[in-house]
Amino acid sequence: MARIALDVMGGDHAPVAPVTGALLALRESGGAHTIQLVGREAVVRSELERQLAGEFADLRAAAAAAFEVVHADDVIEMTDKPSVAIRGKSKSSMAVGLKLQAAGQSDAFVSAGNTGAQMAASAYILGLHAGLDRPAISTLMPTARQSVVVLDAGANVDCSAEELLQFARIGAVYAEDILGRPRPSVGLLSIGEEPEKGNKVVKEAHQLLAASGLNFHGNIEGRDIPAGASDRGPFDVVVCDGFVGNVVLKLYEGIAPMMVGLLMKSGVSKEQLAGALSHLDYASVGGAPLLGVKGASIICHGKSSPKAIKNALAIAVKTVESRMSDHVGQRLAQHGAASAQS
Amino acid sequence: MARIALDVMGGDHAPVAPVTGALLALRESGGAHTIQLVGREAVVRSELERQLAGEFADLRAAAAAAFEVVHADDVIEMTDKPSVAIRGKSKSSMAVGLKLQAAGQSDAFVSAGNTGAQMAASAYILGLHAGLDRPAISTLMPTARQSVVVLDAGANVDCSAEELLQFARIGAVYAEDILGRPRPSVGLLSIGEEPEKGNKVVKEAHQLLAASGLNFHGNIEGRDIPAGASDRGPFDVVVCDGFVGNVVLKLYEGIAPMMVGLLMKSGVSKEQLAGALSHLDYASVGGAPLLGVKGASIICHGKSSPKAIKNALAIAVKTVESRMSDHVGQRLAQHGAASAQS
Repeated sequence: MARIALDVMGGDHAPVAPVTGALLALRESGGAHTIQLVGREAVVRSELERQLAGEFADLRAAAAAAFEVVHADDVIEMTDKPSVAIRGKSKSSMAVGLKLQAAGQSDAFVSAGNTGAQMAASAYILGLHAGLDRPAISTLMPTARQSVVVLDAGANVDCSAEELLQFARIGAVYAEDILGRPRPSVGLLSIGEEPEKGNKVVKEAHQLLAASGLNFHGNIEGRDIPAGASDRGPFDVVVCDGFVGNVVLKLYEGIAPMMVGLLMKSGVSKEQLAGALSHLDYASVGGAPLLGVKGASIICHGKSSPKAIKNALAIAVKTVESRMSDHVGQRLAQHGAASAQS
Repeated sequence: MARIALDVMGGDHAPVAPVTGALLALRESGGAHTIQLVGREAVVRSELERQLAGEFADLRAAAAAAFEVVHADDVIEMTDKPSVAIRGKSKSSMAVGLKLQAAGQSDAFVSAGNTGAQMAASAYILGLHAGLDRPAISTLMPTARQSVVVLDAGANVDCSAEELLQFARIGAVYAEDILGRPRPSVGLLSIGEEPEKGNKVVKEAHQLLAASGLNFHGNIEGRDIPAGASDRGPFDVVVCDGFVGNVVLKLYEGIAPMMVGLLMKSGVSKEQLAGALSHLDYASVGGAPLLGVKGASIICHGKSSPKAIKNALAIAVKTVESRMSDHVGQRLAQHGAASAQS
């Protein structure tokens, strides 16, 4: 049984979407896990009551057993600077939720709030595994085949080749533990498949990855991401710096609505589109574990729907049950030791 | 009247596609321009004869008047190193076509062959405008609104902030001369709209662009490219380094086929798709002028269809008639002088 703290105040649709997401998760899991609803107590209780009086009336008893309300005085706004989560608003729902975990009273934290603040607060309150300067944001991207893990998606710009190697190691743990892919294939995002293609850091990273012991796929190109495969077959993890990863992620998000707009203009029905594109739906992924923190902190899109929150809660459970954070720490420690010897 | 040299040996579908493209251009323009078909004479003549005996029988007299065949002994393969175009295969169709221009016997060169070789040969044979170390590849990307110029698309990785500023200046000339957009709006690709978002070089470039006198749109994000606009309105030019630009370009190319595959699986007809997505068709753009060379060298996709070649020939004519290369040189000289003074 996992204890998952959910930030009820975070995200564009808070507090409605987080509360509905928690109720959907409860319906799905049948109360196998405890959900700690973190936020202003009056707001949380009244929203929960409103929903239990309506659509979720059947869950009243189950919610009483599986939900806890944890009060937090403050709220971090989307426009707040990341440091606010540490200084200034130390009683925010984000800080309170993460401190529960640091105190051993919770196993994971889920938020659709200010991503920068969540990263900073997670690193500060939970701490980082040795060998990392900053956590990495891993995104699960839908492709024509399987989903692929893309990291870093925006936390770390101006990366060194060693940092890209670390992303590869921890991204592989994600693919193993959360996606259940043994010995995942790790691709390096570049501008040509040959090892000598790329910018300075990427060319150096290629050499490090080739000697890393990982199942290195070699370079992949932009066009391989939507396919989930290069000419040499499918891959599970895509490594890039946070600048490139963030551009790729947002471009990916932006193309589908543009194409949907064009298709609807030319008479393709909404139903046909919904059916075809359902597996590109970001809500089906839900959340991205912040990799490298000692514990579990799941980042959700600010626009998260209730379904996205429900799926993020499921990822939190998987993160806890697979002990992913421990595995990330072990993997980094192993190779930190290995490179210190060499 | 422009004289356009066309590399008949370059591209995945050579010599058929270049010859058909030239004939389509002839039909469209009515022989207003001279097309110099460059390649192995026997190959060029027999392919031209084959097509004039078939589908293009009506153009026999027009072709005799508008086409010249220029012999070139050698062919640069897609797998050749860029330097081969300068050393080794100095009698390739690429080198011969560009030398015609250097000798004043041609106004522009168009090829769907090896891009790296075309860049190297163009810079070497035509020369570069003062102030540039390398030419930039500008790509025209279709969006939900207008097309936008994205540069650099792969020629220059590891750029300095000054280089990004140069891309902005020459990309603006492209938008003015080829797209007919007065005072084009120039966006800087980053990971957030605030000036302090981005990697080191991009943050520095933001400051340079803000002080450049250009119509600076500010930062744009990945999701703004398919829309052709940010929250602050539409833009005409997107500036980024060649690593990021190449990833973006190839990702863009890769997403449409993936979505088309998904849509067809769910029963949307080919006709509906073709209608909706026609303006995303790369063939409708055709070719990208290499910016910064003294002259005109138009780069086409290796997979170029006859229609793409025809459109690239039209871009070549526009490049010549608008005197874009002169304008690029003037713009660089102005600002080179300005920064030398400051």
